[in-house]
Amino acid sequence: MARVDPRIYRGMRDLLPEQMTARPWLIETIRRVYELYGFVPLETPAIEYLDVLTGSAGDEANQSIFKVTNPDKKPGDPDSEALGLRFDLTVPLARVIAQYRDLPRPFRRYQVSPVWRADKPGPGRFREFVQFDIDTVGISSWVADVEIIAAMCDTLTALKVGDYRVRFSSRRVLNLLLSFADIPGERAEAVFRVLDKLDKIGLDKVRLELTAGYTDESGDRIPGLGLTGAQVAGIERFLEIKSDRSDDLIRQLRETFASVSGADAEISVLADMSQQLGELGYADDRVVIDLSIARGLSYYTGPVFEAHLVDAPQFGSVFGGGRYDDLVMRFLGQPIPATGASIGVDRLLAALMALGRVESRKTPSKVLVCSIDPKMTSDYLAMTFEVRRAGVPCELFIGKKGIGKQLKYADDLGIPVAVMFGEDEKTKGVVTLKDLAAGREGSKEIDRREDWIQKRPGQVEVPRSGMIAAIQEMLAKAEVGP
Amino acid sequence: MARVDPRIYRGMRDLLPEQMTARPWLIETIRRVYELYGFVPLETPAIEYLDVLTGSAGDEANQSIFKVTNPDKKPGDPDSEALGLRFDLTVPLARVIAQYRDLPRPFRRYQVSPVWRADKPGPGRFREFVQFDIDTVGISSWVADVEIIAAMCDTLTALKVGDYRVRFSSRRVLNLLLSFADIPGERAEAVFRVLDKLDKIGLDKVRLELTAGYTDESGDRIPGLGLTGAQVAGIERFLEIKSDRSDDLIRQLRETFASVSGADAEISVLADMSQQLGELGYADDRVVIDLSIARGLSYYTGPVFEAHLVDAPQFGSVFGGGRYDDLVMRFLGQPIPATGASIGVDRLLAALMALGRVESRKTPSKVLVCSIDPKMTSDYLAMTFEVRRAGVPCELFIGKKGIGKQLKYADDLGIPVAVMFGEDEKTKGVVTLKDLAAGREGSKEIDRREDWIQKRPGQVEVPRSGMIAAIQEMLAKAEVGP
Repeated sequence: MARVDPRIYRGMRDLLPEQMTARPWLIETIRRVYELYGFVPLETPAIEYLDVLTGSAGDEANQSIFKVTNPDKKPGDPDSEALGLRFDLTVPLARVIAQYRDLPRPFRRYQVSPVWRADKPGPGRFREFVQFDIDTVGISSWVADVEIIAAMCDTLTALKVGDYRVRFSSRRVLNLLLSFADIPGERAEAVFRVLDKLDKIGLDKVRLELTAGYTDESGDRIPGLGLTGAQVAGIERFLEIKSDRSDDLIRQLRETFASVSGADAEISVLADMSQQLGELGYADDRVVIDLSIARGLSYYTGPVFEAHLVDAPQFGSVFGGGRYDDLVMRFLGQPIPATGASIGVDRLLAALMALGRVESRKTPSKVLVCSIDPKMTSDYLAMTFEVRRAGVPCELFIGKKGIGKQLKYADDLGIPVAVMFGEDEKTKGVVTLKDLAAGREGSKEIDRREDWIQKRPGQVEVPRSGMIAAIQEMLAKAEVGP
Repeated sequence: MARVDPRIYRGMRDLLPEQMTARPWLIETIRRVYELYGFVPLETPAIEYLDVLTGSAGDEANQSIFKVTNPDKKPGDPDSEALGLRFDLTVPLARVIAQYRDLPRPFRRYQVSPVWRADKPGPGRFREFVQFDIDTVGISSWVADVEIIAAMCDTLTALKVGDYRVRFSSRRVLNLLLSFADIPGERAEAVFRVLDKLDKIGLDKVRLELTAGYTDESGDRIPGLGLTGAQVAGIERFLEIKSDRSDDLIRQLRETFASVSGADAEISVLADMSQQLGELGYADDRVVIDLSIARGLSYYTGPVFEAHLVDAPQFGSVFGGGRYDDLVMRFLGQPIPATGASIGVDRLLAALMALGRVESRKTPSKVLVCSIDPKMTSDYLAMTFEVRRAGVPCELFIGKKGIGKQLKYADDLGIPVAVMFGEDEKTKGVVTLKDLAAGREGSKEIDRREDWIQKRPGQVEVPRSGMIAAIQEMLAKAEVGP
């Protein structure tokens, strides 16, 4: 049999136990907030018809779809039977809305699922990642957007991420910019996509990308959009509108756009949202209007928002979204208002781990029952199950390795307590418990082997019948309750 | 823009809110049991190299792999760069074991993830489904298998599935059958696969499939294996070995196989496992030896086990597994002992729903705040957030629909309490709460509209400041605490 090289595909990754520790907690915490808001759970399949997936989110998204071979496809089958892996959870939601006409309306759902994108992988950029989305379908009022922003705040607070900012703007205000800067509507997507990079590449490069283009550090040529100096000046004047206080920013915006027709109504939406958020307790210290927020995807039509962690800005936006009133149109031929936001679960988790804000451990086990004498396996099993039934995660070392290797296994995994039980203990009706952390500490101060045997740091003999109580006491001392 | 038909691919399904209710509970309950046993979490990508996936689980599994187009593939690339979606969680585990050589050994992991199989779909047979696996890698002793069976029992007990049976046997005992019935070793897989159908198709059809084959109800020809009458008689004598008591079954098995060389040692393993399970409290009333358990997949090498629900036998095996000592071999060229079991999360959930053993609801919301006057949206938002901050899932009906439609929305979703607040209430400093269940009950006895207005069943006016307390009292009465 030919040996297969055990390897993983480019842009994919395995999450080993230490990286997995905080995930269920993260997902459960988010779920609890979403349920408090009355969002309902939904799950859709990973594989969708390609025509259901394509077109909704612009060419960039189409190129990044992983194609799946249809096993039912016979030669000559129409192209419509081609399959792909979902690249977000929003397009499948639009399909669900169009397909099940008797869903309650408004339909407010959450979904946590992996998505796949065939983009160029890079550090922290994976081709499979988990998204956790909330969306409200069927409500055109900005009140629904306010609810999404509030839910984002409550989620980040529940996750104890520390200081964060939710920044929001509106595609409709950006459209005002087009007329303010005299830029034709068909350039909108391209211009917004460049503006979206402001945080990442800075104003100088944005300016170059809007005009003549430039060559980046790696020698790649970034083409420019060829805007005129006057157009760029208009954009820059817009980007200069900044303030820590939303009311002040709104005032500046009204002044700048005073001559743009229809500006008043659109600016009022931002002002109303900001005021309402403030009244609900989501004030300028965590929710701010930021006119540089554009959101790359083409399907946004109204308010757009994104959140970053103040202490980990390098992770960029960990939670973002906006209003997309036209996405269901491609299925139904009529617009259905919708707004929502998506958490990049893996990116957020990576940020929290980098900040040391989540626990990481190699195993849930708190107790290792050692195998000292193979003839006593039945005793070891009984003890293992006794510990588990007391609610303490426990494992039995099965096999014939020496006690040193068994204790090293416990030590490597960070299991705090080891249980040892041999003929000697059995005769005396006792068990030996070893507090591995204390043992390590205590051993440092002992030089001679004889002293060690006499003192046996971190090691106690307790009656067999008192084993559970002694383990619980030892765990409480080690501050690692189950 | 051409309209796209909103539809789902064959064998896929959407899980709408009602079907999703019990899922997080199910998964968390299973996770808690596995962590009590000290299994560690692992996650692997959905997309794997095809050569990593193929070959491990027999031709049947290979055919059922969904192929994924490699976006990095250039013309002339070797076939080894082909990609597929994982069809189980065991093969990816084998890859992980081979790829990360410094993982702790034994490595005892759990993983809950979707898998994909391009099999013919049917009622209850989907092409994407979630598996929840535990496996112990690096231990050859049957003690590890006993732990897996015990974990299966504890999981099913924690899930409150009612009466269940875990049935187990051993591939090595089935191998004894081959020599007992004089069947050549190369027929083993084919024969075991037929035996595996015994529960589903019955002894008569098994007999036909072992010999001349037959034509089934739908007119399809099922080919036979062409075994001789003497060979089938040997198999039947084996299948007749049955008993509610494991010790009695072991005695019969020893008698029947008295002349088969090596039988004693293999039978002893079953006997020891059974005795040890009994000592740990997993006795014949829920864990039984059943010699008809073969498990279709070719990779099993030792004990095999599966569980079914006594009250829902039509769902078949909801939890199964076994020992597979050779699966890592294809990567490393050397065997590494391994054993584990897999829950079909969706099948188990379907069974529990059919048995009425899990809750099903359309929304987590307990309170709907109605929109009576659009000018009062700010008040409605404040009330909605007040309820949420008291820990009660709540939503605001945003929009201009009439109060009747809003109450119908709450009723349809099973939201028990509605909050109504108009100019009138505001002036009086009160809110009106409507107990929707009580309202429905009370309305039945009222014929005349005037009576209804006077009595207003299930409806109370409370001071605005006492809203939260009154809601909590109403929910407690409706026995639907948050």
